[in-house]
Amino acid sequence: MTLQMDTAALNAFLDREFAQVSRDFRVVSATAAQLKLRMTVSDQHLRPGGTVSGPTMFALADVAVYLAILSHIGPRALSVTTSCSIDFMRKPAAATPLIAEARILKLGRVLAVGDVLVFSEGHDAPVARASLTYSIPPAKP
Amino acid sequence: MTLQMDTAALNAFLDREFAQVSRDFRVVSATAAQLKLRMTVSDQHLRPGGTVSGPTMFALADVAVYLAILSHIGPRALSVTTSCSIDFMRKPAAATPLIAEARILKLGRVLAVGDVLVFSEGHDAPVARASLTYSIPPAKP
Amino acid sequence: MTLQMDTAALNAFLDREFAQVSRDFRVVSATAAQLKLRMTVSDQHLRPGGTVSGPTMFALADVAVYLAILSHIGPRALSVTTSCSIDFMRKPAAATPLIAEARILKLGRVLAVGDVLVFSEGHDAPVARASLTYSIPPAKP
Amino acid sequence: MTLQMDTAALNAFLDREFAQVSRDFRVVSATAAQLKLRMTVSDQHLRPGGTVSGPTMFALADVAVYLAILSHIGPRALSVTTSCSIDFMRKPAAATPLIAEARILKLGRVLAVGDVLVFSEGHDAPVARASLTYSIPPAKP
Repeated sequence: MTLQMDTAALNAFLDREFAQVSRDFRVVSATAAQLKLRMTVSDQHLRPGGTVSGPTMFALADVAVYLAILSHIGPRALSVTTSCSIDFMRKPAAATPLIAEARILKLGRVLAVGDVLVFSEGHDAPVARASLTYSIPPAKP
Repeated sequence: MTLQMDTAALNAFLDREFAQVSRDFRVVSATAAQLKLRMTVSDQHLRPGGTVSGPTMFALADVAVYLAILSHIGPRALSVTTSCSIDFMRKPAAATPLIAEARILKLGRVLAVGDVLVFSEGHDAPVARASLTYSIPPAKP
Repeated sequence: MTLQMDTAALNAFLDREFAQVSRDFRVVSATAAQLKLRMTVSDQHLRPGGTVSGPTMFALADVAVYLAILSHIGPRALSVTTSCSIDFMRKPAAATPLIAEARILKLGRVLAVGDVLVFSEGHDAPVARASLTYSIPPAKP
Repeated sequence: MTLQMDTAALNAFLDREFAQVSRDFRVVSATAAQLKLRMTVSDQHLRPGGTVSGPTMFALADVAVYLAILSHIGPRALSVTTSCSIDFMRKPAAATPLIAEARILKLGRVLAVGDVLVFSEGHDAPVARASLTYSIPPAKP
């Protein structure tokens, strides 16, 4: 299967549509099987004790699966997250970027489902897992 | 059952431990049955189109249940969110505060479970629901 | 809001469409706010140690929310469960019927969301909670 | 990492501890990375229309991750499922066995987390995905 958007196109989309967070996020690679998204961790993402906050990891998982869907269907800025299940499994390493590895499990006419593992860069054990569902708006004729 | 922390104590805890977000959050009421947390929505919480972002609603749900647990067990800053399931059901009303209504379903020795409905203030239909699980650290002797 | 199906209609639907399990399930009450479904527990539902099995509680939660949806939209046998998040919080009481209390949080054009608490009959603390999403098929013209 | 139980030991455990369902389930393979569990589908698992029921797929996912945990920690019959998030993504193929592929994401002192994809045997697209959390009882001294 050919991707509709490659790494460069996805990063350009990120800069255009998610200007508030796009400094922190960068697509590292995108294939039909998996999209890798890297997140730079800065002070604003931390909870007391130096841990990356839950909402930050949620945001990373959400953007990673969102971009993985776009890589398959092309740029449609209006897809909406309808649900997320996330498990926080380990404390991320301090002052270390996070890597999200997302894959698409279903691309239906109205719903898409993907899941994602989040790692501290350079570590083998995932810090979080999440699965997300998106509502896909009808393609404009 | 007597609560360990009342509305004032919870808001003081919020200011002390979550200084980064405490401007936006305020406990409205806390009883054994339910904690209400109000969130002021500002530009930083919005996605293109004026919608409150998913991570923002996740953060609201997370803090609401966290504070509801503390209202029952007293201030222990180290409780950790271990999982969350969240459904985004409606688009929040524009420029309207959000109200989270949280209740505790289980307070075990090592795990606590709560759920929460999120509303746009003044509206009847919930914009999101979430259930969250927390790991409770051992009480210091 | 007027319900499309009352308790008697829902139980008749259960007998007709879920013949395999309908002996065990009985709708106790149905209002716009809540549907109560009672389940008789027999040996086939038990795990070693006398606990009601997870799949049995999943089935109860699923049928309860399904019937709550039907009480609002009328009999459409084809609605499909698309997702479920369930927390098992306590061990159910031995040899005691289960009561599921289900409510509908969203009834959209294509998706419905409901949640449910499960109790051992006569006990105050819930043994499980679940939220479920259903895809609603288009109404036949 | 060496597994504590191999395919034969896991199937013997299944026969001994899950006698009610063990006819239908068979471990196909077990490695540190993945456990494959095969389920024979018979009439009792079907909903009207010939679809495998949700509770049946839940049971398959649950047993697959449970056995994957045991393959790592050895036989402890008392581990308890504390939560499950499951997405039903496609209709399983008629009269076709199901294959669950489970992996362990976390094996903590008190909690284990795993996830699983379910396929109709011989098909590439998963019919369901699930993630599950288990409470691990203390090892007997």
